[in-house]
Amino acid sequence: MFSALFIPASVASVKITVLSGGVGGARFLRGLRAAASDASITAIVNTGDDMTLAGLRIAPDLDSIMYTLAGQNDEDRGWGRVGETERVSAELDAYGVGWPWFTLGDLDIGTHITRTSLLATMPLSAVTDRITARWDLGVHLIPMTDDRVETRVHTTDGQNLHFQEWWTRYRASLPAASFEQSDVAAASPAPGVLAALRDADVVLLAPSNPVVSIGTILGIPGIRAASAETAAPVVGVSPIIGGAVVRGMADACLTAIGVSTTALAVAEHYGSRTSGGVIDAWLVDEADAASVAPLTALGLRARAVPLYMRDAATSRQLALDALALA
Amino acid sequence: MFSALFIPASVASVKITVLSGGVGGARFLRGLRAAASDASITAIVNTGDDMTLAGLRIAPDLDSIMYTLAGQNDEDRGWGRVGETERVSAELDAYGVGWPWFTLGDLDIGTHITRTSLLATMPLSAVTDRITARWDLGVHLIPMTDDRVETRVHTTDGQNLHFQEWWTRYRASLPAASFEQSDVAAASPAPGVLAALRDADVVLLAPSNPVVSIGTILGIPGIRAASAETAAPVVGVSPIIGGAVVRGMADACLTAIGVSTTALAVAEHYGSRTSGGVIDAWLVDEADAASVAPLTALGLRARAVPLYMRDAATSRQLALDALALA
Repeated sequence: MFSALFIPASVASVKITVLSGGVGGARFLRGLRAAASDASITAIVNTGDDMTLAGLRIAPDLDSIMYTLAGQNDEDRGWGRVGETERVSAELDAYGVGWPWFTLGDLDIGTHITRTSLLATMPLSAVTDRITARWDLGVHLIPMTDDRVETRVHTTDGQNLHFQEWWTRYRASLPAASFEQSDVAAASPAPGVLAALRDADVVLLAPSNPVVSIGTILGIPGIRAASAETAAPVVGVSPIIGGAVVRGMADACLTAIGVSTTALAVAEHYGSRTSGGVIDAWLVDEADAASVAPLTALGLRARAVPLYMRDAATSRQLALDALALA
Repeated sequence: MFSALFIPASVASVKITVLSGGVGGARFLRGLRAAASDASITAIVNTGDDMTLAGLRIAPDLDSIMYTLAGQNDEDRGWGRVGETERVSAELDAYGVGWPWFTLGDLDIGTHITRTSLLATMPLSAVTDRITARWDLGVHLIPMTDDRVETRVHTTDGQNLHFQEWWTRYRASLPAASFEQSDVAAASPAPGVLAALRDADVVLLAPSNPVVSIGTILGIPGIRAASAETAAPVVGVSPIIGGAVVRGMADACLTAIGVSTTALAVAEHYGSRTSGGVIDAWLVDEADAASVAPLTALGLRARAVPLYMRDAATSRQLALDALALA
């Protein structure tokens, strides 16, 4: 059994690299920062959900992580900035350039204006460095790519939607036939991404959406190979607890790609590195303890622990458990 | 004496075209709309003060007029939107992309985001039509040009500043050696500008800054000639009362181009159309009644009336007086 008292010293100067989506990944990273405060933590963040609204470039996952690590997130609502107002959005609606199904808060718009203006002269990774420098995040955020790769959803009724429209406007209720990353073939990992995987002591997959968050990151040419080839152990944290998603609608995404909404099925989807996959170990919830044996049979180290991140303490403990499994 | 009761009928269906800057022009246009509610009023608006801040395209004069005619202006402060807040600007400052000397209100930023996003697909004149359609302004606003023409200030100590920086940051306190309209030679009047001057029944010069507002408009190739050649009478309203500017710092601009801060000197600067200038008539304040005789000697019709627009009634009366002089 890994000792919590022993961990902080042992992970001093350890390099931890995390593949992460938005809200769930943000909570996991906050717990990881608390669990391994002396470690050097890098998050490679999904940007497939990014979009342009009224000319403003929005990066939901990067911002969710930044706000959460900065202590600026709205814990009650579960997303966005705390103390948010929506005066600008009301103006955009009145002028006819808003998106009624996607409201931007005023503080959030401050971030988007900043990002959009900086993007005129530097790539997203450099912009992210500039923006995150405002706070002492304790985690280095790198977008998966500086190129524009957009997750599109092909619905069974023939529509081709930006992921955000499908997710936020339709609450993932339109059955998805497939997901597509536009322009992904020409995309490259952002500077630092491959090195962060190659030089890591531990690689973690946050309990983010396996399809449109982690899956999108792994789809950038070179990232899957770097994950498969790193000398570091790669540990995934299941986003599924007891056959259900903890938050969000990842089940709709899994269904579309033919993967069951179970901790075991998601691990099989990622695959063991011993057989061409990307993970060495898989952390499941106590409710899914029965999957530990079949996971082991797949060549994965597995362990069942409490996965639900209800507060700082449980998030930190989850991160400790993930590190222990590494 | 022109009868106020007689005017509204007489100006029904009359076409009135006004050259205008921002705050003072906005008040004048509001009075004109009240004075000639059945007239078709077009304002050709200075855009030399426009600038880009944190990637947002800002058109101060167009917005001052729009907000004022929409009843959305802050009467107490004298500029911007009523009920304004500055949450977004505080964020921009925190991210290091704000301009400490130029704060944008949240509601105002809604306008700028709208303008900036629409400018990606249409020229400023079409954007202005779209934005102003939100309200029933009663005045058609046309930017002087769809091209970017920027007023630069060359100071006597060798600096070359955007007009807004000189005006707002330094409060026009750095002596100006000259003003320059960047890229003006290649600029064209926006669609509708020349027709509005050619087809007008009356052309009015609002009591705006003669150098950087009206002067900038007249500097767009073709506009001065159209003003000089129109069959309509051209009536100017003095922005100088009793040897002082009513608001703003136009005296600093006049001094730089060697024009005294007097109603007479500004009229001489515009010049009578009988001798190559752009005005036929000049309305001065009662405090400047002594200038009526020398103005007449210059070939101008002139009259002294109360010019100070302290409220809706005085603004309306001023507009009636300007129309009467036509």
